[in-house]
Amino acid sequence: MLKAAIIGLGWWGRIIAGLLKGNPKLRLVGAVALDPAAERFAIEHGMAFSNDFDAAINDPGIEAVILCTLHSQHCEQIVRAAHAKKHVFCEKPLSLSRADVLKAVAACNENGVALAVGHEKRFEPPIVELFRMAAAGELGTLLQVEANFSQDKLLGLPPDNWRLSEKEAPAGPMTATGIHLLDLSVGLLGPVDSVCARVRQLGSALTNGDTLGALVTHKNGCNSLISAILATPFDGRFAVYGSKGWAEVRDKAHPEAPQGWTLTVNSRDKQKQVTEYPPANAVLANLEAFADAAAGRAPYPVPQEQMIANISALEAVFKSARSGQVEPVQNT
Amino acid sequence: MLKAAIIGLGWWGRIIAGLLKGNPKLRLVGAVALDPAAERFAIEHGMAFSNDFDAAINDPGIEAVILCTLHSQHCEQIVRAAHAKKHVFCEKPLSLSRADVLKAVAACNENGVALAVGHEKRFEPPIVELFRMAAAGELGTLLQVEANFSQDKLLGLPPDNWRLSEKEAPAGPMTATGIHLLDLSVGLLGPVDSVCARVRQLGSALTNGDTLGALVTHKNGCNSLISAILATPFDGRFAVYGSKGWAEVRDKAHPEAPQGWTLTVNSRDKQKQVTEYPPANAVLANLEAFADAAAGRAPYPVPQEQMIANISALEAVFKSARSGQVEPVQNT
Amino acid sequence: MLKAAIIGLGWWGRIIAGLLKGNPKLRLVGAVALDPAAERFAIEHGMAFSNDFDAAINDPGIEAVILCTLHSQHCEQIVRAAHAKKHVFCEKPLSLSRADVLKAVAACNENGVALAVGHEKRFEPPIVELFRMAAAGELGTLLQVEANFSQDKLLGLPPDNWRLSEKEAPAGPMTATGIHLLDLSVGLLGPVDSVCARVRQLGSALTNGDTLGALVTHKNGCNSLISAILATPFDGRFAVYGSKGWAEVRDKAHPEAPQGWTLTVNSRDKQKQVTEYPPANAVLANLEAFADAAAGRAPYPVPQEQMIANISALEAVFKSARSGQVEPVQNT
Amino acid sequence: MLKAAIIGLGWWGRIIAGLLKGNPKLRLVGAVALDPAAERFAIEHGMAFSNDFDAAINDPGIEAVILCTLHSQHCEQIVRAAHAKKHVFCEKPLSLSRADVLKAVAACNENGVALAVGHEKRFEPPIVELFRMAAAGELGTLLQVEANFSQDKLLGLPPDNWRLSEKEAPAGPMTATGIHLLDLSVGLLGPVDSVCARVRQLGSALTNGDTLGALVTHKNGCNSLISAILATPFDGRFAVYGSKGWAEVRDKAHPEAPQGWTLTVNSRDKQKQVTEYPPANAVLANLEAFADAAAGRAPYPVPQEQMIANISALEAVFKSARSGQVEPVQNT
Repeated sequence: MLKAAIIGLGWWGRIIAGLLKGNPKLRLVGAVALDPAAERFAIEHGMAFSNDFDAAINDPGIEAVILCTLHSQHCEQIVRAAHAKKHVFCEKPLSLSRADVLKAVAACNENGVALAVGHEKRFEPPIVELFRMAAAGELGTLLQVEANFSQDKLLGLPPDNWRLSEKEAPAGPMTATGIHLLDLSVGLLGPVDSVCARVRQLGSALTNGDTLGALVTHKNGCNSLISAILATPFDGRFAVYGSKGWAEVRDKAHPEAPQGWTLTVNSRDKQKQVTEYPPANAVLANLEAFADAAAGRAPYPVPQEQMIANISALEAVFKSARSGQVEPVQNT
Repeated sequence: MLKAAIIGLGWWGRIIAGLLKGNPKLRLVGAVALDPAAERFAIEHGMAFSNDFDAAINDPGIEAVILCTLHSQHCEQIVRAAHAKKHVFCEKPLSLSRADVLKAVAACNENGVALAVGHEKRFEPPIVELFRMAAAGELGTLLQVEANFSQDKLLGLPPDNWRLSEKEAPAGPMTATGIHLLDLSVGLLGPVDSVCARVRQLGSALTNGDTLGALVTHKNGCNSLISAILATPFDGRFAVYGSKGWAEVRDKAHPEAPQGWTLTVNSRDKQKQVTEYPPANAVLANLEAFADAAAGRAPYPVPQEQMIANISALEAVFKSARSGQVEPVQNT
Repeated sequence: MLKAAIIGLGWWGRIIAGLLKGNPKLRLVGAVALDPAAERFAIEHGMAFSNDFDAAINDPGIEAVILCTLHSQHCEQIVRAAHAKKHVFCEKPLSLSRADVLKAVAACNENGVALAVGHEKRFEPPIVELFRMAAAGELGTLLQVEANFSQDKLLGLPPDNWRLSEKEAPAGPMTATGIHLLDLSVGLLGPVDSVCARVRQLGSALTNGDTLGALVTHKNGCNSLISAILATPFDGRFAVYGSKGWAEVRDKAHPEAPQGWTLTVNSRDKQKQVTEYPPANAVLANLEAFADAAAGRAPYPVPQEQMIANISALEAVFKSARSGQVEPVQNT
Repeated sequence: MLKAAIIGLGWWGRIIAGLLKGNPKLRLVGAVALDPAAERFAIEHGMAFSNDFDAAINDPGIEAVILCTLHSQHCEQIVRAAHAKKHVFCEKPLSLSRADVLKAVAACNENGVALAVGHEKRFEPPIVELFRMAAAGELGTLLQVEANFSQDKLLGLPPDNWRLSEKEAPAGPMTATGIHLLDLSVGLLGPVDSVCARVRQLGSALTNGDTLGALVTHKNGCNSLISAILATPFDGRFAVYGSKGWAEVRDKAHPEAPQGWTLTVNSRDKQKQVTEYPPANAVLANLEAFADAAAGRAPYPVPQEQMIANISALEAVFKSARSGQVEPVQNT
């Protein structure tokens, strides 16, 4: 049983707190937040409340932190928690720059603590199966990825919400949903060589941009075509095309009211096959994988070099969205 | 009844000849080809055969030509046919450069003949419905297009087939299938401002490239993400995301053995709806629309400015595939 | 706010209690059960507990009862509750014989109390839409119904569970799930004329029968083909065929872990259309309709003559399952 | 190469003649029909024409007959052809009574000729797979079948067409489409013990009945619920429920304009899986299986005892449709 403090009790922090109720692997024993209203929530959920991050990470009764804080705070908080010998689960994006993610990973490794990241899509059963098929060669040589994660949940946020700010979301939809797709692409196709991204405000009052399209070229020569829109009804799609066949995962509904997925596989010389997946709690599976890693029961399934490659590519997305040009990704 | 000569009797020319058998609007009365084996085919199908293009276009018994020739020949043949006062139906791509398409269109207009192009996807019933929905505002402000037309039919061609040559197919899959998607995008979102395209040889022996990904930015700010692969089993998809909803057309099977389409519409506050479309012959519908335009019964549904915008963008795709950079599209 | 007592706190009674937590229309203030273990549940959920049915229905603080009791007790309990001027929501089947349902309905009418029945499928949004289409004539003259409600949830029950007994479940799967389908058929096609039913033990240890097939002939000449199996993985299907088209509702998953429904409509000369319905809580919608009826806000949507016709047909199903012959239904 | 004469050149006979063009296993060399208009068709298709059945079956150049004649003529024609040592492919239904089918089978066996029947659904790839799964035990113990084959193609026939007559179609839709379903049920679940069938005229001018529902009880205790309607848009469905899982084949469109099938399999503890089958020519596969059987290359896949069991059950369907009661099937 891993005893953790949750840092940040906004919308997402509270969802995680709810999910972990009664969990046999991970228990929230503390909470840190600046908002006084969070104190009541923490107490009702049996967590010691504090507004002092340092006090929490120095509490010997706490073994791990779960960071649900502003994107720009992730790096420093990871480093400080690692130095306090706490395992770290950090919401995505892990950082906003390659320099930061390198610092964060190094701090965890130097202090021998586990580092996990909130890329729950990796834990969705049909995505796990797609990765297995790809690794087993069932799709042949991988050629290209197409991915989309669009929604309109943020349209209702007040305009000054941090998730809509240029500082925390430099490429609009990229940090909200696109980063999940980039993570999957990196997981399948490896580090990214260059990026061409476009972010525009087209269909909403989100001045920071509501529509992103990106052509991501991996070092192995494959492309990922990434789409993330914040001003259209929900769609979720991740498809990979290979020389023997292609596979497509489609979300039936938004993860907040999940209805499961379909996995369509079209292999040369076989019938096209659609497998229906019932809903499964991928967020919880990710948190439990973190607890397993912290306890040394199993390595965390997302390798650190992929965490680094993802954020390195993210930095290039930010640059390209600003410059309008193809931007190289720094990888060494 | 429009009396036409078909120019080129290769794989596709013969398909068109078969489709037009007994057609009440358009009759093939002549054929021009260089391959002597084509003569037998022509005679069996009741067409006068010739290997002299000029003789055919100067034949007073012929009112129109259907060009199923090499891409690089299209422009000159259109111009010559137009000057001979023949209506022209030209296979895609209409030309390989903006300069050429301008010449071709001008020649037709100066000579008062109709010009049509082999973009049959425009005539597929679910695409017609998607265009109607978009025009009626049912999807709100349009935001982004995602499109894919992939197949492995060309893998069986001999390596020296002209369709696989750098000269006739400067960006590999782009002239084979991608051009259809670019045409639809231009039809929905208007002229293109810039293009970033990548063509690679990844999964086959097609040295001219088997995998294309392109980020196409339209002048109105929207992107189209275009995918065309020649080394994976068939997939056909055209989706448009708007501020009120999105619509996706999916081909159930390759057009050569058609099984129809699905049209999925996801509008905000409505149930997601999938409409099943039975197979329909879009190639024939296109040819008949050409006959109607030649006879003055109805304007040809693809406006000339879209023909021009499409080829102007195509030229930038070629450039970007070579340069690896974002390439502007010339529009004026 | 209707104040109700729940009678019976077994598996289903507890589900209803959970659903009604915080409901603005209906509040459970009391519970009656014989099982002492139910007392703790009742108290935890803020209900006064009793093991005396008469005391509960004579409690002036209680306006309604919700019967989650043995099938064979329904009639007498409805009658007694009605005489005590309590509104009654009764789980299905309303009774096990036509004589009983007539008594129950009469008692409610004489005492001016509402009577509702636990046929939640009537409240599923795609079923509501199918009924609307049928009533509006969109399917033409109705011809035939096909319906299936199969599952394997009861396989885990101990063999002496009352739901598996000959007394409470005279035709095995009929009272478990088939009765819902019969209710829908009666709602669409009217009273039943005759029934031919077969119940067999084929694929499980359920000695009372695990497989039911029934040919139900309505007085208007239409048939309903009803299938209810307790020894196969879940399926839920309700289809009606008409002279202009047919409509089919399909459950995507068992109601206990709902994933929503599809409604497929195939009309002559239109494309086949599939509408996706997200999960909706039909059990709660039914309870709220009961509260509305009790308060006089709206009539209860299932007419009493359909309640009577359903149980009249049910009695013939029991007879036919025993006799192996076609059994007439008593309707007058 | 089996040389055959086709007997009957109506709608269906002509379809078969078209299918067999250029077939390497079976060639139509003769045709027998009474309609003089059939002579031109026969000659155009390279068949010797005759209006004398006996002359044809005594022609030494003919090895087999394909009967596309009135249902009531099948038995006598099979017997006569068999005595003339011709192999027989007979359209469904093989006969209209058990006595007749026994005679027909006996005559073929006595004369050492192959007998095949036009139940092409047996040869549809997803049905072949469903039968394989059932035989391999993948669905567990089989429990119940649900089947539907409905259409509105016959609505356009003149009222005096023989297919609509009481003599040739004693239970309306049963001989048109229902017999295919009964054949599949017998193939899966074995001989039939009793039948309860209802045929009504509800939604059309087909005075012989447009709507059939039947509860078929097999000797092994399982039921088949069979639906066949002639006054509703097309539907085709064959589902079998077993103790480990169920499988459902669904036709995407009418066999006349085929779009393929889906096969849905729902096994306990596995994800539900939908396999898409492209169109395949099952009619031709059946004819080729006949040619293989005639040549001794492979046994005909439909065993004679199933042919007999099917017609024995058909006779009971006729009786039950008349009597309104459960009718036993004669099996010995």
